[in-house]
Amino acid sequence: MLLRMSSLFLRTLRDDPADAEVPSHKLLVRAGYIRRVAPGIYSWLPLGKMVLENVTRVVREEMNRMGGQEVLFPALLPRDYYEATGRWTEYGDTLFRLKDRRGADYLLGPTHEELFADMVKGELSSYKDFPVILYQIQTKYRDEARPRAGILRGREFVMKDSYSFDLDDDGLKRSYELHREAYIRIFDRLGIDYRICSAMSGAMGGSASEEFLAPCPTGEDTFVACHSCGYAANAEAVTTPAPPPVTTEQPPMRVLDTPDTPTIETLVNHVNERFGMGITAADTLKNVVVKVRRPGSDKTEILVIGVPGDREVDFKRLEAALAPAVPEIFEAADFERHPELVRGYIGPQILKDLGITYLVDPRVVTGTSWVTGANEPGKHAAYVVAGRDFTPDGTIEAAEIRAGDPCPRCDSPLSIDRGIEVGHIFQLGRKYADAIELDALGPDGKPIRVTMGSYGIGVSRVVAVLAEQRHDELGLRWPREIAPADVHIVGTGKDNQIEVALRLGEELESRGLRVLVDDRANASPGVKFKDAELLGMPTIVVVGRGLGQGVIELRDRASGTKEEIPLDGAADRIAAACAA
Amino acid sequence: MLLRMSSLFLRTLRDDPADAEVPSHKLLVRAGYIRRVAPGIYSWLPLGKMVLENVTRVVREEMNRMGGQEVLFPALLPRDYYEATGRWTEYGDTLFRLKDRRGADYLLGPTHEELFADMVKGELSSYKDFPVILYQIQTKYRDEARPRAGILRGREFVMKDSYSFDLDDDGLKRSYELHREAYIRIFDRLGIDYRICSAMSGAMGGSASEEFLAPCPTGEDTFVACHSCGYAANAEAVTTPAPPPVTTEQPPMRVLDTPDTPTIETLVNHVNERFGMGITAADTLKNVVVKVRRPGSDKTEILVIGVPGDREVDFKRLEAALAPAVPEIFEAADFERHPELVRGYIGPQILKDLGITYLVDPRVVTGTSWVTGANEPGKHAAYVVAGRDFTPDGTIEAAEIRAGDPCPRCDSPLSIDRGIEVGHIFQLGRKYADAIELDALGPDGKPIRVTMGSYGIGVSRVVAVLAEQRHDELGLRWPREIAPADVHIVGTGKDNQIEVALRLGEELESRGLRVLVDDRANASPGVKFKDAELLGMPTIVVVGRGLGQGVIELRDRASGTKEEIPLDGAADRIAAACAA
Repeated sequence: MLLRMSSLFLRTLRDDPADAEVPSHKLLVRAGYIRRVAPGIYSWLPLGKMVLENVTRVVREEMNRMGGQEVLFPALLPRDYYEATGRWTEYGDTLFRLKDRRGADYLLGPTHEELFADMVKGELSSYKDFPVILYQIQTKYRDEARPRAGILRGREFVMKDSYSFDLDDDGLKRSYELHREAYIRIFDRLGIDYRICSAMSGAMGGSASEEFLAPCPTGEDTFVACHSCGYAANAEAVTTPAPPPVTTEQPPMRVLDTPDTPTIETLVNHVNERFGMGITAADTLKNVVVKVRRPGSDKTEILVIGVPGDREVDFKRLEAALAPAVPEIFEAADFERHPELVRGYIGPQILKDLGITYLVDPRVVTGTSWVTGANEPGKHAAYVVAGRDFTPDGTIEAAEIRAGDPCPRCDSPLSIDRGIEVGHIFQLGRKYADAIELDALGPDGKPIRVTMGSYGIGVSRVVAVLAEQRHDELGLRWPREIAPADVHIVGTGKDNQIEVALRLGEELESRGLRVLVDDRANASPGVKFKDAELLGMPTIVVVGRGLGQGVIELRDRASGTKEEIPLDGAADRIAAACAA
Repeated sequence: MLLRMSSLFLRTLRDDPADAEVPSHKLLVRAGYIRRVAPGIYSWLPLGKMVLENVTRVVREEMNRMGGQEVLFPALLPRDYYEATGRWTEYGDTLFRLKDRRGADYLLGPTHEELFADMVKGELSSYKDFPVILYQIQTKYRDEARPRAGILRGREFVMKDSYSFDLDDDGLKRSYELHREAYIRIFDRLGIDYRICSAMSGAMGGSASEEFLAPCPTGEDTFVACHSCGYAANAEAVTTPAPPPVTTEQPPMRVLDTPDTPTIETLVNHVNERFGMGITAADTLKNVVVKVRRPGSDKTEILVIGVPGDREVDFKRLEAALAPAVPEIFEAADFERHPELVRGYIGPQILKDLGITYLVDPRVVTGTSWVTGANEPGKHAAYVVAGRDFTPDGTIEAAEIRAGDPCPRCDSPLSIDRGIEVGHIFQLGRKYADAIELDALGPDGKPIRVTMGSYGIGVSRVVAVLAEQRHDELGLRWPREIAPADVHIVGTGKDNQIEVALRLGEELESRGLRVLVDDRANASPGVKFKDAELLGMPTIVVVGRGLGQGVIELRDRASGTKEEIPLDGAADRIAAACAA
């Protein structure tokens, strides 16, 4: 059926929406693909729904091709499934919770590990029934603290989630590899530029995990890449190589008067000028205090983190390292309640006596000597030696990653980029199977604990990512398989241009192309051209003034090339351009 | 891709689930199409998902064909949209309500009139933009008091809802008619047996409304049909013809001693024997007390309903007549608080003085004379005349409908059947447009208030209705367009039957048929036959013992016919049978 602009439910906007900060949000709203209903909650208009449907189709085809079987779970779920695995509590404020008319607790599913595991437990019993891969394409809910960027991070969104069930670790690896290959095919077909990055497991618990990140300046995720060995990882997953322990004898610890040294820079200058020590910021040890809340707990515990003074604590890395516990800022009021922690002058020397947990950056190895706080106002201590003057309770990956940091695999300098997570594959292991005792009966009659993989694609997010990666200052530029139409025919002029445009549209449609015709009688050529560029179909055909000379114009939206072609035989030419 | 039983995620059950009462619920669970997650909340397994997808496709194709444009709204909606139209309150306990992490009120959409109207207001402005028809196929939520019968009445379910926007009543009628025709095509293609019935508007408010009801003994809805004039209506919509007023003079009201007459029957016998009156139950006036709660109110008001004593009050008709107010039972405790209402002996004579609203069946016209309660224990009154001894505050359609009641259109006797609502079309009018001031700018520059239609199809319910209407004692019998597969090939035997079955399956698939092959090595022929009948594909092919003689068996699941056909050329024969 020909899409006609004269009747299409579409209004394009000249101005960016006031709340939009990133290109995809601006353009998808301006081009009439989506509309905001509430923070992080959007409606899909006809063109947007077509794009969403096209993405869904590609994902479904590739999931079926790899042997996945499609099911559909409810979004409204009773509490008990998530109680059994602890996630009713662990999810914290991110979970939408509600009660039904009888007062029973429900939630809106943020992800469905529990339900899939339970279904497999109910349906399968013999080792012969395994392996199995199940998936769904379904609406998910997460009450994000900061919903942002339109459909990039929504509170209601469409996700493909799949789960593999295997009898042993090798099986899990095969299922994981099948997904990895399917994801590569999917994102290739979708026309997304992506990197496969090692990932932390975060709240999920488990072992191997990779993220498909789409490089993008507006991305929320930071990832590193090594151009020497090919290593790539999201910032949360990057590990810091620990230097060997230092065995040289150090001078005894010495307390220094360091008035007016509120920053690392002033401290370094003061120590070097006043005491002639010749240190850099990397020789100081910065101690950051946070509060940590365990899931379901009302109370927080104090945690101090020690990092070299030339680096900040990266809160997202800290969060990932502590998950499912959640770090919170140690506020001025907290310092007032804890005078033993002297703000700006904290050193690790006293933490053991205070019973406070102290975790350090991996660079803080035994025998290293630091300038750090002396736990008195205006005083620092030098020659504070790890393992001699303090003993950390462990290490933590919380310091920021910087371009040029050494690759943990080959020691070459890392580059840093921003990206958007579009897919995640994850060897979950037996966490959920243990929680619900998911076993298969083995050939010897003994139970085999099942091991799971969990795999996600942000289906609605992919739409935004395509808009982020493929646009110019004029508008969207959809890849053909995802575009609402292959061809956008613009009829402009007062003669029979619109009639010819419609006839050409029908001819192209009869060849299997999807066609949008701008047949509006009252819109100016300028408006029509602007709309065609904004809407972003890959091929634009203009039936305009040249029609008198028997020529029309063929434009390629991605490259911007234009050429005049004869109306005679135009359908062949256009079809060829669309197949190229 | 060939569906193979050896790897299909499917477990069939021999026994009916304990909580299942209706055939569709039993069979869809036993055949492994759906599984229960919570009351009224179900998961779809692979075969069920295919059926659901097939229904969705038919609905989508016909909605597109009639010019509907597909959009997709969120299910999680902020309160303010529903506050504006009063439905945040009106929906009562049926609405799932929740708060987000900031404490803002949200709901899970039970239907989306507000959102569609708001979207049209945002996008369209000129009279030239109209008419427009928008639809979505989406998950809806209603916290039913009595979720029942599997997916027949769920709390999370899939619905197609569409809305038409027109500038005048004639336009609305055209959009309504377009939907009516599309619905006829849809339900015909889906293979559903249905009746188009006049319907009450219920909580929706508005004018013309029809329901597509699927006749079914397990249906929750009652509908009447007139075989003489073709009138059909759901029970809530049937109107009772009022007889002409009675003008003959009646004897004065007279109080009778009627001890021990707790029922209408004992009252009639007592009055006839003791006082020689010769009345029937239809000459008595039964007064039923209920409490009525207006939406959003904490309090209830007392309402008395008068119906001829030979009829019960039909609570569903009463609910429909009072909506959006909700009637509740007047309990024993309520009678204790109101000694002026003498249980079993209530008469309308005193209600006006008590300030209690009194509504009567349309048969209770002015001048009719009744035997009714005398508002004293053990006493009734005779010759209680409407308009003389009491004056009702109005009429109400609350009395039960009975087979043989007169058709309101032609007076012929009505028949009564049970059915399940699968579709509803409804001329909504300007209720929502008024609430949000939805106008189009007319050619004269003046605003035109838009008028809406609202149209629904219970997409997931259709799956259950098909199972209700098309099954036998052995299992399901899907219509071909909806079935998960066209052909179910059963390979049984120890020679090369399974191999041949798979080869035949591939050949049929290459002809465009959808094929399920039972290639299980360890299942007995009996189990395989039972499963084939239970699963319900329209065509069953058995590759079994006859293979040695070069024959296989072709079965038609609906008619039960079987015939042996040569393996040679079998694909032609089977394809022909599938096309028939």
